[in-house]
Amino acid sequence: MPHYAPPLRDTRFVLDHIVRLQDHAALPGFDQVAPDLVDAVLEGGGQMAAEVLFPLNQIGDRQGCTRQSDGSVITPDGFKSAYDRYIAGGWTTLDCPEAYGGQGLPRVLSTAIGEYVLSANQAFEMYPGLTGGAIAAILVKGSDAQKATYLPNMIAGKWSGTMNLTEPQCGTDLGLIRTRAEPQPDGSHRLTGGKIFISAGEHDLTENIIHLVLARTTGAPDGVKGISLFIVPKFLVNPDGSLGARNAVSCGAIEHKMGINGNATCQMNYDGATGWLVGEENKGLAAMFIMMNAARLAVGLQGLSQAEIAYQNALSYAKERQQGRALTGPAAPQEKADPLIVHPDVRRMLMEAKALTEGLRALCLWGVLQVDLAEKAATEAERQAADDLISLLTPVIKGYGTDKGFDVAVSCQQIWGGHGYIRDNGMEQFVRDARIAQIYEGTNGVQAMDLVGRKLAMNGGRAIRAFFAMVDGEAAAAKADPALADLAGRLEKANGELKAATMWLMQHAMGNPNHAGAAATAYLHLMGIVTVGLMWLRMAMAASRLLAAGEGDRSFLEAKLLTARFYGERIMPDAGALRRKLEAGADSVMAMPVDAF
Amino acid sequence: MPHYAPPLRDTRFVLDHIVRLQDHAALPGFDQVAPDLVDAVLEGGGQMAAEVLFPLNQIGDRQGCTRQSDGSVITPDGFKSAYDRYIAGGWTTLDCPEAYGGQGLPRVLSTAIGEYVLSANQAFEMYPGLTGGAIAAILVKGSDAQKATYLPNMIAGKWSGTMNLTEPQCGTDLGLIRTRAEPQPDGSHRLTGGKIFISAGEHDLTENIIHLVLARTTGAPDGVKGISLFIVPKFLVNPDGSLGARNAVSCGAIEHKMGINGNATCQMNYDGATGWLVGEENKGLAAMFIMMNAARLAVGLQGLSQAEIAYQNALSYAKERQQGRALTGPAAPQEKADPLIVHPDVRRMLMEAKALTEGLRALCLWGVLQVDLAEKAATEAERQAADDLISLLTPVIKGYGTDKGFDVAVSCQQIWGGHGYIRDNGMEQFVRDARIAQIYEGTNGVQAMDLVGRKLAMNGGRAIRAFFAMVDGEAAAAKADPALADLAGRLEKANGELKAATMWLMQHAMGNPNHAGAAATAYLHLMGIVTVGLMWLRMAMAASRLLAAGEGDRSFLEAKLLTARFYGERIMPDAGALRRKLEAGADSVMAMPVDAF
Repeated sequence: MPHYAPPLRDTRFVLDHIVRLQDHAALPGFDQVAPDLVDAVLEGGGQMAAEVLFPLNQIGDRQGCTRQSDGSVITPDGFKSAYDRYIAGGWTTLDCPEAYGGQGLPRVLSTAIGEYVLSANQAFEMYPGLTGGAIAAILVKGSDAQKATYLPNMIAGKWSGTMNLTEPQCGTDLGLIRTRAEPQPDGSHRLTGGKIFISAGEHDLTENIIHLVLARTTGAPDGVKGISLFIVPKFLVNPDGSLGARNAVSCGAIEHKMGINGNATCQMNYDGATGWLVGEENKGLAAMFIMMNAARLAVGLQGLSQAEIAYQNALSYAKERQQGRALTGPAAPQEKADPLIVHPDVRRMLMEAKALTEGLRALCLWGVLQVDLAEKAATEAERQAADDLISLLTPVIKGYGTDKGFDVAVSCQQIWGGHGYIRDNGMEQFVRDARIAQIYEGTNGVQAMDLVGRKLAMNGGRAIRAFFAMVDGEAAAAKADPALADLAGRLEKANGELKAATMWLMQHAMGNPNHAGAAATAYLHLMGIVTVGLMWLRMAMAASRLLAAGEGDRSFLEAKLLTARFYGERIMPDAGALRRKLEAGADSVMAMPVDAF
Repeated sequence: MPHYAPPLRDTRFVLDHIVRLQDHAALPGFDQVAPDLVDAVLEGGGQMAAEVLFPLNQIGDRQGCTRQSDGSVITPDGFKSAYDRYIAGGWTTLDCPEAYGGQGLPRVLSTAIGEYVLSANQAFEMYPGLTGGAIAAILVKGSDAQKATYLPNMIAGKWSGTMNLTEPQCGTDLGLIRTRAEPQPDGSHRLTGGKIFISAGEHDLTENIIHLVLARTTGAPDGVKGISLFIVPKFLVNPDGSLGARNAVSCGAIEHKMGINGNATCQMNYDGATGWLVGEENKGLAAMFIMMNAARLAVGLQGLSQAEIAYQNALSYAKERQQGRALTGPAAPQEKADPLIVHPDVRRMLMEAKALTEGLRALCLWGVLQVDLAEKAATEAERQAADDLISLLTPVIKGYGTDKGFDVAVSCQQIWGGHGYIRDNGMEQFVRDARIAQIYEGTNGVQAMDLVGRKLAMNGGRAIRAFFAMVDGEAAAAKADPALADLAGRLEKANGELKAATMWLMQHAMGNPNHAGAAATAYLHLMGIVTVGLMWLRMAMAASRLLAAGEGDRSFLEAKLLTARFYGERIMPDAGALRRKLEAGADSVMAMPVDAF
């Protein structure tokens, strides 16, 4: 049986030294979070995740969801009562606006809790998680009446939300959407069409489900310029806020998947369902991207989350399982064998897991801080800088975070040997659950194209230039500290590879955009290495400073320095190889005739 | 629904130009294989795999095996009749000695067929596959009477075989084995103990199951020096060869696993079962390594096999699925979207899959040729050179082959987007099935330690020196051909990284063996890159020569050159990064105190 404990101390370290909550204490929301409150929220959320949600993780995987003949969907045993406890605890309300019943806390805090919930039970988290994306879209694009009608119950978790984008003929390419929306005299639309892969599309956790649906109005232009966003509630809402008639939207089937079995992945049928336009007609894609950007950061967090729980279980196994002897002589001579953790190759996998997990935690929380700052920072310049940064980093957090999250889950399963392949031991579920995060909300290839094809060029390259300057500036400053000089030098070198790769793209991709496409994934990974490297430099700086001041837990801080060193020595060397691969260009990627494959 | 077609033309290319069957035509077994026979065997085996075994692959995954209350195990629907057809076709006999009813063909031929069978249905292949390992051990270590008693029926496939090594407290560390064997007055032993993870330990495909079991005789020394190998048949065999009493060995449970569900992974109970010593007492480990070395090559082939079928299904999807537009403008303007294969990042994944799969095929078949040559080559020098080479390469074929096989399966699933995560589409099964090959028959970390800790130092480094000379010699010779010069230069460079890494190990690991342990996996991957690079240089040389001579299918040969170029540009750059990682040494891997993780 696997186990899980929320990594409170690591979260707190990131909040204190990377996010630096105290530096933003004057901003709305942040002004509420005294250190005591932060501890209380982290502890409460961690406890709920570990004690309420985690015990359902394997049950959810084994049972999956069940669609009944009437189209209703039953979630796995225990999910409903756990959900009731979850919303009773107010965990859906943390970062939502107080005007609609939220607590108005910083997103960094809800994201920290989100990690725990995702580690404990990713399939469960997706029910409230998808609601969060729908709330974000209504908040920005909905009318005042729509906000008043839907947000309070959604924020309270009484109602849930979904994102309905994908259709059988289109996933990435939303221009191919066929679902139709016919305007009605009362201002509503009638929606007709079929959607697939709708996470939490139908279930028994909430009284109502608010579907956000992309569709084409009658006569809309072809392609993405003819897509509009609609609210389609499962139950229509009466003017007094009570639930009215059942809408003509139903779940036609649920998918049988590799993992996240506790979440119902639904085929949704819209058979003349009543819907209401959100925002402007034909501007649905922009509205959808509000959901999507939030969702991409949340999915990056999933990579970290599965890495974290896989690491915890690999670590305990490596300490307990006795097999073989240390290469330098018996470490436990009184035993018949030494624990696995004496073996360098096992430690290599644990250190990789630790370096990536802690680095991604810093990146996810610091990234989400930028979302808060983009909205709330005191000056326009600060808001813009934060918005630039998170726009640039969103594909990196999603793509690199989930690729490395999956790799870590696989390595941690490997530490268990044959026992890692056995279902009851739980390690293989982490791998199967982690796998989806590389795929949904835009495959990681799509993330890479977003980064290379769109984000680099934003505002004449303003964001990437600022990023380069930030990394070089911090690396140069850190070199003065002998404890940091090696890592700072490696970061500077990796940033140099990234700058050179960026220059190569500027010189070559204009003439042949396939060079950008063929470079994209390598570029995203290279930027991931640099970005997580920056996080490690900052964590090492904080640890070095605290150690010099004699503050904090010495062993914990020394572990940060050791892990930072490992990251520099064992993960950063890939930067050069990635640059060389992408600078090889598109020719050998594109030259093969289709029939010669 | 996935599909599968045996890659006959690619196999034939490797047999003709890498294995070069014709060069060995004077050797026993090889003298039987006229080109027509090769084609007939490949076509027949491929047809059996595609038409009989592949249709059962998803069924086997869904149904799994069932243990009944009497301890018997039922394989999935169709496995029994498919197995009957498999043995009726003589597919278990190909490379077995004619003295016991085999066909005496070269192992390269049975391995080529083995790839098809594994691609079509890995879980099925493991029933006859494990038998092959047991046959190998009995052939080398068994008495004449044991050979006569067991081999004919095992080779014919009427009886199957197993390898019983693992116990709950020991997987890698066989010194911890507890199963006891008490000598009996009639020369037999009574075996008592429990084994786990016994593939094909119990099933309904064969009349008898011949278990090869590691156990300790009464009073045997501790550790691996006290382990002996026993034959323990499910049914005792009467002197006339008929089946006698049921032996006291039974299946106590079957495991529920991540994949290979069609194969029964059994907990086996030995309750005073009658067994017979194979070879010398306390020399069981050596006997076991005969099975194990054969099994490791077979498992390397599993990596290739899952990569191949995943690639075939990713390729067809990339050609059919229409999504988005080529970056250079619509490729199919009459359609609403272009096929996925226009996208550079999709092509990158396909090219990686193609380069690794074809490269690994060459490596697996050329590797197995060395097993044949080690046994049959004309001179002692040739036999020794071949034995050196395959000893050195076995961990590379197993470790690199299965790591890359898994990576390719994951990438090919990625090409399917969300549809790759859905069970019925089949892609996720390839990933789950491929995963086990990195774990069993010695985890890939164990392979890496075998390479670095044992194989490099064999006979004063004779094997690795010969390997370096071979690679450098061929790279130098190939540079004369302008079509090959770039790849040859890259191979020479990668070999230089490998030589430098080897030198680093020689200088550092003697003083601190943890440097070897911390370097092992990176070293294995570096050697994998060089070895598959050598295969690509040879394939490119053959293609270049045939093109110059105007022989062969131009498009097929040009595709080989393009894929070789891709391998050089996009896969070989990792060599330098791997060297830098391992030369960072063990310090940052070993320094973390256990409690600080």
